[in-house]
Amino acid sequence: METKIKIPGITCKTDADSVLKHREKLPEIVDKILSNCNEKTCYNHIAYEPIPSKESVIKIIELLKEIIFPGYFSREKLDPVNLKYSMGQTVSIIFDMLSEQICRSIRHDCFRYGRECRNCDEEGNESAVKVLESIPDIQNILASDVEAAYEGDPAAKSCDEIIFSYPGLFAVWVYRIAHKLFELNVPFLPRIMTEHAHSITGIDIHPGAEIGRRFVIDHGTGVVIGETTNIGNNVRIYQGVTLGALSLPKDAGEQLRNKKRHPTIEDDVIIYSGATILGGDTVIGTRSVIGGNVWITRSIPPDTKVLMEMPKLIYR
Amino acid sequence: METKIKIPGITCKTDADSVLKHREKLPEIVDKILSNCNEKTCYNHIAYEPIPSKESVIKIIELLKEIIFPGYFSREKLDPVNLKYSMGQTVSIIFDMLSEQICRSIRHDCFRYGRECRNCDEEGNESAVKVLESIPDIQNILASDVEAAYEGDPAAKSCDEIIFSYPGLFAVWVYRIAHKLFELNVPFLPRIMTEHAHSITGIDIHPGAEIGRRFVIDHGTGVVIGETTNIGNNVRIYQGVTLGALSLPKDAGEQLRNKKRHPTIEDDVIIYSGATILGGDTVIGTRSVIGGNVWITRSIPPDTKVLMEMPKLIYR
Amino acid sequence: METKIKIPGITCKTDADSVLKHREKLPEIVDKILSNCNEKTCYNHIAYEPIPSKESVIKIIELLKEIIFPGYFSREKLDPVNLKYSMGQTVSIIFDMLSEQICRSIRHDCFRYGRECRNCDEEGNESAVKVLESIPDIQNILASDVEAAYEGDPAAKSCDEIIFSYPGLFAVWVYRIAHKLFELNVPFLPRIMTEHAHSITGIDIHPGAEIGRRFVIDHGTGVVIGETTNIGNNVRIYQGVTLGALSLPKDAGEQLRNKKRHPTIEDDVIIYSGATILGGDTVIGTRSVIGGNVWITRSIPPDTKVLMEMPKLIYR
Repeated sequence: METKIKIPGITCKTDADSVLKHREKLPEIVDKILSNCNEKTCYNHIAYEPIPSKESVIKIIELLKEIIFPGYFSREKLDPVNLKYSMGQTVSIIFDMLSEQICRSIRHDCFRYGRECRNCDEEGNESAVKVLESIPDIQNILASDVEAAYEGDPAAKSCDEIIFSYPGLFAVWVYRIAHKLFELNVPFLPRIMTEHAHSITGIDIHPGAEIGRRFVIDHGTGVVIGETTNIGNNVRIYQGVTLGALSLPKDAGEQLRNKKRHPTIEDDVIIYSGATILGGDTVIGTRSVIGGNVWITRSIPPDTKVLMEMPKLIYR
Repeated sequence: METKIKIPGITCKTDADSVLKHREKLPEIVDKILSNCNEKTCYNHIAYEPIPSKESVIKIIELLKEIIFPGYFSREKLDPVNLKYSMGQTVSIIFDMLSEQICRSIRHDCFRYGRECRNCDEEGNESAVKVLESIPDIQNILASDVEAAYEGDPAAKSCDEIIFSYPGLFAVWVYRIAHKLFELNVPFLPRIMTEHAHSITGIDIHPGAEIGRRFVIDHGTGVVIGETTNIGNNVRIYQGVTLGALSLPKDAGEQLRNKKRHPTIEDDVIIYSGATILGGDTVIGTRSVIGGNVWITRSIPPDTKVLMEMPKLIYR
Repeated sequence: METKIKIPGITCKTDADSVLKHREKLPEIVDKILSNCNEKTCYNHIAYEPIPSKESVIKIIELLKEIIFPGYFSREKLDPVNLKYSMGQTVSIIFDMLSEQICRSIRHDCFRYGRECRNCDEEGNESAVKVLESIPDIQNILASDVEAAYEGDPAAKSCDEIIFSYPGLFAVWVYRIAHKLFELNVPFLPRIMTEHAHSITGIDIHPGAEIGRRFVIDHGTGVVIGETTNIGNNVRIYQGVTLGALSLPKDAGEQLRNKKRHPTIEDDVIIYSGATILGGDTVIGTRSVIGGNVWITRSIPPDTKVLMEMPKLIYR
């Protein structure tokens, strides 16, 4: 049953039986995928309990943005009249969504790995309240981040521009929320949040890192900040900076879990683009400046400028 | 009022009073966030005037894509019959959205920083028209970009593949529109646009940069092109290239705003991956080739190949 | 007809005629864009045949995620009761969408470049079936990738966390599907898929690359893996690694298309962050370890550790 569709200047063969002929193979394919799901070699998550939803976590981030920077990202404009209603309603929605996702994360962890009951419902509600209670403090520390970003960046036209559009600020505020959840021992959610920010910004901050006030990441693509990094106040880093672990044996996963593996950066340090600082014993002393592309695996005393001796350039 | 939910093989405690008990804390949290909004340490934007909407800006970019590359990204197929209707309607929608966002950006800037009235309504309409009038010129320069990309990339199967999927082209066309808005002295919008492209592509081009015809960015993740960079015609750069400013004092923001801080790249230059070129006085002469990972802070004459002397490798 | 809008404390001029005055210019702009579309200097795609839709391709990726990792990303929870219905329905939808997009891609290629008729309808159906038939094998290889990721990463809390949130895994599974389509000689779609993953993750894997089991990319931003790269089993790479081509003449596009231009990485190799390995004749021997930031353009024998001699650091 072959026909010809006429298209100006072109003839295209088409076969009405083709779809049917191929669709008939689908049930067998479905059965094979299903039977493969029972193999050890397939990760699946077929169970009665609901699991954390990445989509909901992203929605929570969107809503948090509205209450952390009131008026900047709301769909309706906020004025002194509707502010309270809008804030109250948004906080209430965040509570419902966040407590559910925390509960699901704990329950999933508990069922999956046979851990002891943490009373997930109660803990979900409690932790959601704690996150919301921390918002004013987080707003204050973020205000210090915005100020520091403006002071150091000649391309910034205003603090508002930073809030509207700077990826560094986005990655940092999402990290600050995720870190709170990490401290509350919530599984999955913190990393889903920071990986969402990583996806948007190219900045990969592990929720376990400890980071002080007035923290600035400029440009940011390619930045990696590992789980056990400590960063003091007033630190500025540029694109492509890695604060990472020393090289690992292949089975490092089990050996080094929960050990300090990433560096400590003291107050007032600047780290230029592409620098790599590795190791849990490495401390960059206060007010030091680390030059671009420098590779450091040992501690640097305070008030030191570290530059790479320029590799000779070859001109032809 | 504790109950037990039965799930096959698992028992999970749940407490119906828990939600209520925790929800009751929300009003106090809302009040604290609201009162924190009045502090200096919280950035908020609670005011009567509407502000630029990031969401609308992204929608404008989507629509511009449809008129700049007609037929490639439309939901309905375009043929010679419906082309004019579709184009007319899309241009009309872009005009409305863009003029509103320009007006809001100017008004916001004006209210916020008490600047002199720029007649934001009129200027919004006028600038939106100017952007639309520039589309044919932008199409022509983008056609030169597409051609140059195809000629230099053995992995490109066709020019259409470049238009459909290359992130470098996306970042460049969004930059070309944002640059037009930057020239028209529109606040916020240009940077929101280029940061959107940065988020999608990992390529961070400041809307203030000046970039000639036949410009190609291959792969692109990690590329940074600073505000006062000048790039000639027929230049090709690879992933991880920084065209940046020299190291800055902490208060550089005020001192260096509006000064030339980024390099000049003349015609026919190639810059390989990971190279860093810094400083407002640095000029890379025409037809020069900058090797991968090279770090340059001074000018390079025309027709020069600059390679890094390979650091010795240690084999164990 | 100028009026004054009263806003508390602020007066803002507005001009009701302004919109009309500027909107009247739109028809002329539309005509100019349309007439520019007929120029050689504008890429357009105005034709009777439908073209591949980026939006549909992204939707297909979303749906594939649901069947490859059953239960992890579904909107409804999956349990043993509804699993079969859900899987069957999703497979059926994917077949319809994928066969249509493959058909469109072939047809587009055929019309555009006047290639011989490949019987696009039939080939679309056939290739869609082949992709779906390969799902169990792809699940198995992905399970090996997940395991290897968990074993080598002390920051990973569980395999589920890797599936939920690790960008490296996302980029790799999308590549594995795209590679299948590439092998089936489908135009456009493979690259649209991997560039979507590139946009989400900063990891740029060309669909033509060949990659073995237990492949891990950690952090990943800035990774580039070129079209003719070969990677064995049990290889681990970090952020910013380039597996690329040697520097190319400007007209390399035509000369080098379809030649082996990218390196070969044998089994059990680790490549640390920022390393660059270039050239089609370059082979990294089995069990070798390539240190961070190393730049390699020649082969490395098996069981070799290659480190950069640290450039001297200058302390001030």
